[in-house]
Amino acid sequence: MIISILGASTTKFGELWNVSPRAMAKEVMVNALNMSGLKSSDIDALYVGNMLSGILGNQANLGSLLVEELGVFIPAFRVEGACASGGLALHNAVNSIKAGQYKTVLVLGIEKMTDASLDETTNALMAAGSDEERMAGATFPGVYALMAQAYMKQYNVSEEDLASVSVKNHYHGTLNPKAQFRFPITINDVLKSPKIADPLKLLDCSPISDGAAAVIITGGGSKKIKKPIRIVASEIATDTLSLHDRKSFTSLHSVVEASHKAYKKSGLKPTDIDVAEIHDCFSISEAIAVEDLGFSKKGEGARDIAKEKRTLFKGDIICNSSGGLKACGHPVGATGIKQIVEITEQLRAESGERQVKGAKIGLTHNVGGSGAVTAIHILRV
Amino acid sequence: MIISILGASTTKFGELWNVSPRAMAKEVMVNALNMSGLKSSDIDALYVGNMLSGILGNQANLGSLLVEELGVFIPAFRVEGACASGGLALHNAVNSIKAGQYKTVLVLGIEKMTDASLDETTNALMAAGSDEERMAGATFPGVYALMAQAYMKQYNVSEEDLASVSVKNHYHGTLNPKAQFRFPITINDVLKSPKIADPLKLLDCSPISDGAAAVIITGGGSKKIKKPIRIVASEIATDTLSLHDRKSFTSLHSVVEASHKAYKKSGLKPTDIDVAEIHDCFSISEAIAVEDLGFSKKGEGARDIAKEKRTLFKGDIICNSSGGLKACGHPVGATGIKQIVEITEQLRAESGERQVKGAKIGLTHNVGGSGAVTAIHILRV
Repeated sequence: MIISILGASTTKFGELWNVSPRAMAKEVMVNALNMSGLKSSDIDALYVGNMLSGILGNQANLGSLLVEELGVFIPAFRVEGACASGGLALHNAVNSIKAGQYKTVLVLGIEKMTDASLDETTNALMAAGSDEERMAGATFPGVYALMAQAYMKQYNVSEEDLASVSVKNHYHGTLNPKAQFRFPITINDVLKSPKIADPLKLLDCSPISDGAAAVIITGGGSKKIKKPIRIVASEIATDTLSLHDRKSFTSLHSVVEASHKAYKKSGLKPTDIDVAEIHDCFSISEAIAVEDLGFSKKGEGARDIAKEKRTLFKGDIICNSSGGLKACGHPVGATGIKQIVEITEQLRAESGERQVKGAKIGLTHNVGGSGAVTAIHILRV
Repeated sequence: MIISILGASTTKFGELWNVSPRAMAKEVMVNALNMSGLKSSDIDALYVGNMLSGILGNQANLGSLLVEELGVFIPAFRVEGACASGGLALHNAVNSIKAGQYKTVLVLGIEKMTDASLDETTNALMAAGSDEERMAGATFPGVYALMAQAYMKQYNVSEEDLASVSVKNHYHGTLNPKAQFRFPITINDVLKSPKIADPLKLLDCSPISDGAAAVIITGGGSKKIKKPIRIVASEIATDTLSLHDRKSFTSLHSVVEASHKAYKKSGLKPTDIDVAEIHDCFSISEAIAVEDLGFSKKGEGARDIAKEKRTLFKGDIICNSSGGLKACGHPVGATGIKQIVEITEQLRAESGERQVKGAKIGLTHNVGGSGAVTAIHILRV
């Protein structure tokens, strides 16, 4: 069965203090419906990817809450897998269509993170980690800093090379009207920014954000969308929750496994990919990801990015044309769906100033809990 | 495609202060595997139904956490829809098999509620409600008490009739070794117990509990289980989150709709059902449920239960042979899966002292957020 994307929309990401989760959800649901030419009564089910609403907002049961904004009382689900919640929600929505249970499904990713204090939000995010990491006082910057230390030592990579990830993503963000940060930064800006967890500095880290994104997928057709973008692979893999249980600190096994399955399912290989949205929660994440996804040789990910091999108008496989988590923002449950929206727009040649010319095939890489779970989707024209 | 249940297990429900969520999960996963004759490496994905782990335990990403206890790193998901989380997880697991994505899936329901203070747990449970209900100070006993007031007035039903639900379920609980409460109660005990929210008294209310339950389902066969129980319908429906937005206080639209879809899908009718597990979070819930499910005429649900039409060894359609939420306990995310375990054991004629003779067809009724979402499953030999 062919699964097509009929509608795709994202809010602006950022510190949206004057917007409620309901309003964010409604905005993207209405926009996705408008793009698809469908009415809300054409939607058979709602999937919501969200991590923190229960912890930070005392609101569980988000599926039931948000069907109210859609105005139709259809089966609704919240799917959670830390920062991969969006990708996991989409995977289950795809399955529900392939199963013949639903025909057309709206998948929403949403997170409201900036209404709580930074301490509360940081603690809440560690709910994605393990007891051992939490009790040792580790935060996610700390966990990824351990990976960065190992990576830099093992492959003789410099802080400048890592910084180039953030520089690239901020450049892309300047071209994205929905991005949280729309200013360019330099390698020196990154190096001079405050240390968060050595060797990661403030500008190596993605921000705390609010935002929502929605896609409408179907196993049927659409009168309005003649050539819809297709989802040709949706694959998930897991690994241990704790870093200390893993064999390698410089590769995420869940990314390798999920992407292998996705390439096999789609009959594609890494070099077929034109554009990719990468889960760059930290600069080190994108450096390792482009290697695990097969875009760069092992140890060369950061250096390839420093050589602008992943940059708009310059590279071979363009990574994070949206600005990525670093510049576009990282409302955790929304990220996996925002990635799908960005790739959909690229493949529809609707990305404006940041359009990657001739993009036909795209990939999204959505990771939860420092690699405990990874969702890979491949889309094509 | 035929979806079969190969393994099913539940922990004892209760105040399990000396048992961790990991240990609860491991116990039921191992027992379900042993019953099925499968190894953990035969399992293709893990679905976890859970509501409160993030809020009360600061542990999100339960899918990734609990595959560690299963010992295999397979795709893993947490599905949440308040107290219907278990039923929603099973629905998505069924879809994932019908989609051809996975062949054999373990579905776990789990909740650890008694490690927090009663105030914390009560607040956390209200995360299933709406802002308006929360801000008005409503708790779930308060919301269901409003339904009970309307129901008693509309149908001239007495407190004694409602109390008979708890009396029946406590009687059934005395026969279930896994139940939280294994003592009988009388109508007078219920009437004399402290008022919680008029007209609901302490013994009209299900308890706060810890527990886990697991089922293994497959689209394939099994060497060990020659005649597996089949899932012949898995249907979901939603309604408004808030009571004040609904047309009726004496019927739950989501239950009516989900059960209609389930009867249609299975080709069965209410009178075909031999045993049912009902979501009796309060006595009023079961009275209304047996009407919405078509077991009793409108307004006669409580009276039918008082006449012992739903009681072991006496009734036509036996409801809550496990003891229900009232006596077996209500670890919210586990409840929907525990219901499946109970019906599976009944249909396999393995329910010991509480066996309903000749039970061939069973139904589970799992509700979240005072009727905001309902999951109905129908199982048969």
